[in-house]
Amino acid sequence: MKYAILGTGMVGRAHAARLTELGHAVTMGTQDVAKTMASTRPDGMGNPPFSQWHQANPAVKLAAFADATDQGEVIINALAGHVAVEVLKKIGEGIGRKVLIDISNPLDFSKGLPPTLSVCNTSSLGEQIQQALPQAKVVKAFNTTTAAVQVNPQLLSNGEHDIFVSGNDAGAKATVVALQKSYGWQNPFDLGDITSARGAEMFLPLWLRIFAALDNPLFNIKLIAPAKT
Amino acid sequence: MKYAILGTGMVGRAHAARLTELGHAVTMGTQDVAKTMASTRPDGMGNPPFSQWHQANPAVKLAAFADATDQGEVIINALAGHVAVEVLKKIGEGIGRKVLIDISNPLDFSKGLPPTLSVCNTSSLGEQIQQALPQAKVVKAFNTTTAAVQVNPQLLSNGEHDIFVSGNDAGAKATVVALQKSYGWQNPFDLGDITSARGAEMFLPLWLRIFAALDNPLFNIKLIAPAKT
Repeated sequence: MKYAILGTGMVGRAHAARLTELGHAVTMGTQDVAKTMASTRPDGMGNPPFSQWHQANPAVKLAAFADATDQGEVIINALAGHVAVEVLKKIGEGIGRKVLIDISNPLDFSKGLPPTLSVCNTSSLGEQIQQALPQAKVVKAFNTTTAAVQVNPQLLSNGEHDIFVSGNDAGAKATVVALQKSYGWQNPFDLGDITSARGAEMFLPLWLRIFAALDNPLFNIKLIAPAKT
Repeated sequence: MKYAILGTGMVGRAHAARLTELGHAVTMGTQDVAKTMASTRPDGMGNPPFSQWHQANPAVKLAAFADATDQGEVIINALAGHVAVEVLKKIGEGIGRKVLIDISNPLDFSKGLPPTLSVCNTSSLGEQIQQALPQAKVVKAFNTTTAAVQVNPQLLSNGEHDIFVSGNDAGAKATVVALQKSYGWQNPFDLGDITSARGAEMFLPLWLRIFAALDNPLFNIKLIAPAKT
C-alpha cells in the first residue's frame, strides 16, 4: 500500500518507519520541503532534526503536502492539532474520497501545562476534519497512546492492551483495523461513528495526568470486560 | 468508621451495602426522608424504589442531608452531578474539614444521548465542589467505573485493573486509598491534585462509548506500563 503521512514530527516519523519496515511505500508531507530538510535543530517537541532522522530512514520520501497526498492511497494526519483542519482544508481536493487516518489531538498549550483541548465535549477534531472534508473517509485512530506504542504494541505487556477506531465508513474502519493488526494490535475496538472521536480525544487529559505521574509516556490502557456470551 | 453517603441512587446504595458489609456504620442522606421512603416506583435510572432496597439493607440509616452529614466522619458524594454543588453548598457547615469523597460525574442529559459534560477541560465538578467548600478535603475517586465495580473490583479479572484518586490533601487521599484497598483495589493510582479530576471526569465520554459498544457497564481499564525502575 502507498501511504502519505502529513506531518514530520514524532508521530509521523514513527508511522513512516514502521510502514516502511512492513514493506509499504511512504511519502511524508510537509509545508516546505527545503525548510524541513535544512533544519539542523531539534523541533519544538525536542525531536532531532528531520534530516537526521531521514538519513536513518532513506526509503521514506518527503514532498509538499499536496504532492505527498497525491502519492498516497491512504492518508495519515499526523499534524499538530492546532493546524490540522487548516492544512487539510487546503489540500482537500487531493484527499478526495481516500481513507484519512486522523491521529491528531486538539491540544492547546496556550493556557499552560498540562494542555487543555481546543475542542471537546460537543465536538472533536475528528468531527471538524470530517466536516471540512465531507468526502474523505475519516477514521480517528491511534491518538490514545504514545507514538512508539501506536506502531509497536509489543513494547508493552506482549501487546495485550487496546487501541480504538472511530468513523462513519465501515470499509475505511476495516482498512484501519487491518493496519493496526499489521502493527501487532490484537483486537482494535470500534467506538462507533466519528462523533465517538470525542471519547478518544477526551481521554487525553487523563492520559496527560497518568503520563505526569509515571514520568513516562510508554503506557497504555487495556479494557477489562467479561467475555461476550 | 462512620460514613455519610449523600444520594440514594445506584452509586450510593452500592457503597452503603459494601461499607456495611465491611463493618462500617452508614447513614445515607436524602432531601426528604419521608418522600424517599414513600416512593414505590423505580427512580429515573430504573433502580428499584429505595424502600425495597432498604428492606434488604436494614442496617443502613436514612436521614436528611444535614443530619446524615453530621453523623459521618467521612462523607461520600453520590449525588447526581447536576445537583451536587447546590446540595453540598447548603450543607457546607456540616461538612467542615471532613474528607469528602466525590464520585459524581457532571453528566448533562439535556442535549440527548450520550450525555455531554456540564463542566470540563478548564475545570471539573471536583474542582467546583472544592471551590464551594474550601475547608473540605475533597478527593475525586471511583467515578471512572460502574458502581458495582467501584465497590467490588473482584467482579472483573481478579481485581487486576485500576482506580484513581485526585485531591489536594495527601492525608485525605491516603484515607480514600485505604478505603479503596478495603474494597479490593490493589494499587489505587494518584492522578495529582484536584485539578486532575478533569482527567478522571473527561474519561466519561470514552467510558460511555465503550459501554454502548459492549452493551454492558461491567468493565474497567487497566494501566499497562513498564515496571518502575
